[in-house]
Amino acid sequence: MATSAPRDTLVNVDLGARSYPIAIGAGLLARADIAAHVHGKRALIVTNTTIEPLLADVLKARLAGIEVEVLALPDGEQYKTLDSLNLIYSHLLEHGHDRKTTLIALGGGVVGDITGFAAASYQRGVNFIQVPTTLLSQVDSSVGGKTAVNHPLGKNMIGAFYQPQAVFIDTDCLATLPPREFAAGLAEVVKYGAIVDAEFFAWLEQHAEALLARDGDALSYAIEQSCRAKAAVVSSDETEQGRRAILNLGHTFGHAIETWQRYTGLLHGEAVAVGMLMAARLSALRGWLSAAEVARLAALLEALGLPTAVPAGMQVEDFSKLMLRDKKVLDGQLRLVLMGAIGEAMVVVDTPPELLLESIAQSL
Amino acid sequence: MATSAPRDTLVNVDLGARSYPIAIGAGLLARADIAAHVHGKRALIVTNTTIEPLLADVLKARLAGIEVEVLALPDGEQYKTLDSLNLIYSHLLEHGHDRKTTLIALGGGVVGDITGFAAASYQRGVNFIQVPTTLLSQVDSSVGGKTAVNHPLGKNMIGAFYQPQAVFIDTDCLATLPPREFAAGLAEVVKYGAIVDAEFFAWLEQHAEALLARDGDALSYAIEQSCRAKAAVVSSDETEQGRRAILNLGHTFGHAIETWQRYTGLLHGEAVAVGMLMAARLSALRGWLSAAEVARLAALLEALGLPTAVPAGMQVEDFSKLMLRDKKVLDGQLRLVLMGAIGEAMVVVDTPPELLLESIAQSL
Repeated sequence: MATSAPRDTLVNVDLGARSYPIAIGAGLLARADIAAHVHGKRALIVTNTTIEPLLADVLKARLAGIEVEVLALPDGEQYKTLDSLNLIYSHLLEHGHDRKTTLIALGGGVVGDITGFAAASYQRGVNFIQVPTTLLSQVDSSVGGKTAVNHPLGKNMIGAFYQPQAVFIDTDCLATLPPREFAAGLAEVVKYGAIVDAEFFAWLEQHAEALLARDGDALSYAIEQSCRAKAAVVSSDETEQGRRAILNLGHTFGHAIETWQRYTGLLHGEAVAVGMLMAARLSALRGWLSAAEVARLAALLEALGLPTAVPAGMQVEDFSKLMLRDKKVLDGQLRLVLMGAIGEAMVVVDTPPELLLESIAQSL
Repeated sequence: MATSAPRDTLVNVDLGARSYPIAIGAGLLARADIAAHVHGKRALIVTNTTIEPLLADVLKARLAGIEVEVLALPDGEQYKTLDSLNLIYSHLLEHGHDRKTTLIALGGGVVGDITGFAAASYQRGVNFIQVPTTLLSQVDSSVGGKTAVNHPLGKNMIGAFYQPQAVFIDTDCLATLPPREFAAGLAEVVKYGAIVDAEFFAWLEQHAEALLARDGDALSYAIEQSCRAKAAVVSSDETEQGRRAILNLGHTFGHAIETWQRYTGLLHGEAVAVGMLMAARLSALRGWLSAAEVARLAALLEALGLPTAVPAGMQVEDFSKLMLRDKKVLDGQLRLVLMGAIGEAMVVVDTPPELLLESIAQSL
């Protein structure tokens, strides 16, 4: 008896001439035709030393007929630097890669962001394919074309908007992800429900347990809906002139937490979880969100194993000081993403400072 | 009696949403409304230590109402590096520039190329204005959006296609340009006539003396026609997928000369002059250009004080070896820009090696 064919899903990111497909499925890396998206004869897989022994050979097997090299960067956010970028440039030049080469990012957000910017800038732009291996990178950084490296004076300060040819998401990669990292990725999944899709939010409330158990079907569906939501938002505003900023729900509060902890406490997704709840409380103070909706958000985050409390010791002043130097403060204005309802977000610039302070105080 | 108004010329570079104006005129920097093209409240002028004392204050006077800083990089191609780029990023971050800042490049091609790439990559792209001060940068690098820095393993290997908001060209800046640099810029001017504008080529033949005397009207007209020619080519192929490559007439031969001399002999424009004549000879060998047309090109280059001879000691093998590792060798194919007539260029990939060698031998 024949087994049923694997159920791979395709999501299209609609950006005119820069449109591209996202393929999602369990075990996808064992069967996807990745070579079809390599337009030249050569490719460089950029990965890190943790992922390379696990997946580099699996990926190479999908690139028959193409001359492929592998470059493994050291693993960790502290290596998301101009120096790592230069390692990629030097490899490409030492090995004679020309403008027709393709860079393939195999790893989490750090690998994807560095490799994307290397592809954007090597000989003024070469082809680029994303193979994200963490939940966070699958639902967030691999979709939408934001690439960057950090500068000692600020995260993601150097980069480009640059779209890949294609994204391949294999949910089997998540089997070995540590529980905190997995949950941190789910925070961004919740975010998509919160900002644009009330129905998906309700689905998440019903399937929290299945997701935590890493059920393949539940994961595929959650990733697909997340990618669809992000793709729709990005399609409407590729270079973040306005609307795209709703993807930052919880990020301004979360960024203040991460900075206050000097990036040694909560993971990014965990800080975003706390930040989303703070944004929801502020939205309630402005009269837009009901107390019951704030409670639903808190309950879902907790059900998914995410923190909802501000780190002990952090004060109202810590937030207000840090949030006013956030890069989202354009021309001195505090831009915040708030919620009009579950499934509806807006970018507002008229937050009364006393309400901001009150929402922070409520969260301590 | 009122004096007549200065005759500034406007050339539009037509790139859809990325279109921008080029303003050209003698004394333009004393009157142009540059502030109108700065969209935020802050700007950083990036220049070099040679230009800063001559022109930084003149430019600042055109930016009333805007908070302006000046950053002077060391002067020279050897500083067109990732390190110089990082000086710009660090300045911007130390001084709290956000995504609404504007970078203004004041200088020659090196300053323009570095500053353009800094603008392309700082916070994923900020506004950018070009104020080119050398003839070469006025007619070439400031138009078309190619930005880059060098890598130890190759020139212009790291960069982006990134268009400015506006370009301001003051022909008075050329008064103090050393004669060799001035002539080197004229080589690129001749190129535009050679590739797309036979009428302009004939005009150059008639006005070589006026140009060498740096006559204001002649210079303005030559720069205007050069910018129009480049703008038309760039509009048809912004990211150099095909047609734009005709702008490289003479560059593959010229690049071989520069590399053989380790960039310590001929200036770029001088090497391009020699290279254009070599390309013309090859075009004649293919039967496309008459001997008379080759002679006209040689005579015009000489009238403008440009070299036409290959450097002493350089052999046929030096060219063939270097040209086959040029980055224009895509997928192992030698792409050359040849001439079908004066005012007509084409990109060809089917050059018989023996004709290439013969054209080189003719030039030694």
